[in-house]
Amino acid sequence: MRLTTFTDFGLRALMRLAGEPTRAFSTAELAEEFAVSRHHLAKVISVLAGAGLIATRRGGGGGAMLARPADQIRLGEVVRLLEADQVLVECFAPAGNLCTLTPRCRLKARLAKAEAAFLAELDESTLADCIYTPAEKV
Amino acid sequence: MRLTTFTDFGLRALMRLAGEPTRAFSTAELAEEFAVSRHHLAKVISVLAGAGLIATRRGGGGGAMLARPADQIRLGEVVRLLEADQVLVECFAPAGNLCTLTPRCRLKARLAKAEAAFLAELDESTLADCIYTPAEKV
Repeated sequence: MRLTTFTDFGLRALMRLAGEPTRAFSTAELAEEFAVSRHHLAKVISVLAGAGLIATRRGGGGGAMLARPADQIRLGEVVRLLEADQVLVECFAPAGNLCTLTPRCRLKARLAKAEAAFLAELDESTLADCIYTPAEKV
Repeated sequence: MRLTTFTDFGLRALMRLAGEPTRAFSTAELAEEFAVSRHHLAKVISVLAGAGLIATRRGGGGGAMLARPADQIRLGEVVRLLEADQVLVECFAPAGNLCTLTPRCRLKARLAKAEAAFLAELDESTLADCIYTPAEKV
């Protein structure tokens, strides 16, 4: 079972923003701190902003910050958003399912229930439980 | 969140074997019925056999069959086995974790708990709950 790097980077960014909620972070700064691709991170930030989880301001002193208090952002919500185009197995996709077992399959509902349990467990925590601050900032 | 095609094919094969537990299936026959790569399926069968979930017999009339009654094979056990080399996120890998947040991360334990909830939910069902038989065999 695997989450995408996209989701992983998004979670890292949100945890970092939650660590200093009044400061705006540039994508370049976050990418350098995390030692990850700036281009990849920029796409994640864009999706998080589009979903209203972070607010971005352009120009000097601009950047990204949490749009809502960290304790009002559940981890399940973040993962659902960032994994929106990922399907657990082929038959979960709205199109392109070639599985010959589909019409008589008794597994799919069980897999869906397991995925729901995964997300429900994540919904038990908010970003406030996962605040990240680099050691030198403490 | 995504399971590998390897796991998906393994589950399909086990569900099919469970449908006719006294018959030996050749990999070629299963691959044709499922319309999937025979080579890929052969690797899955080999792992399932290595783990003692299926028994294989060589030669004419040979093939694969369940090594244990279907009601004694939990879905979580199958998924744990087939996803053994998959990590939920980078830091779950024993080596090669480059995430700079790792030493101070408060997310990892929560992700691990969610993964455990996913597998625990699958452990509520056995292969006997997911028996598959093609329509023409019923």
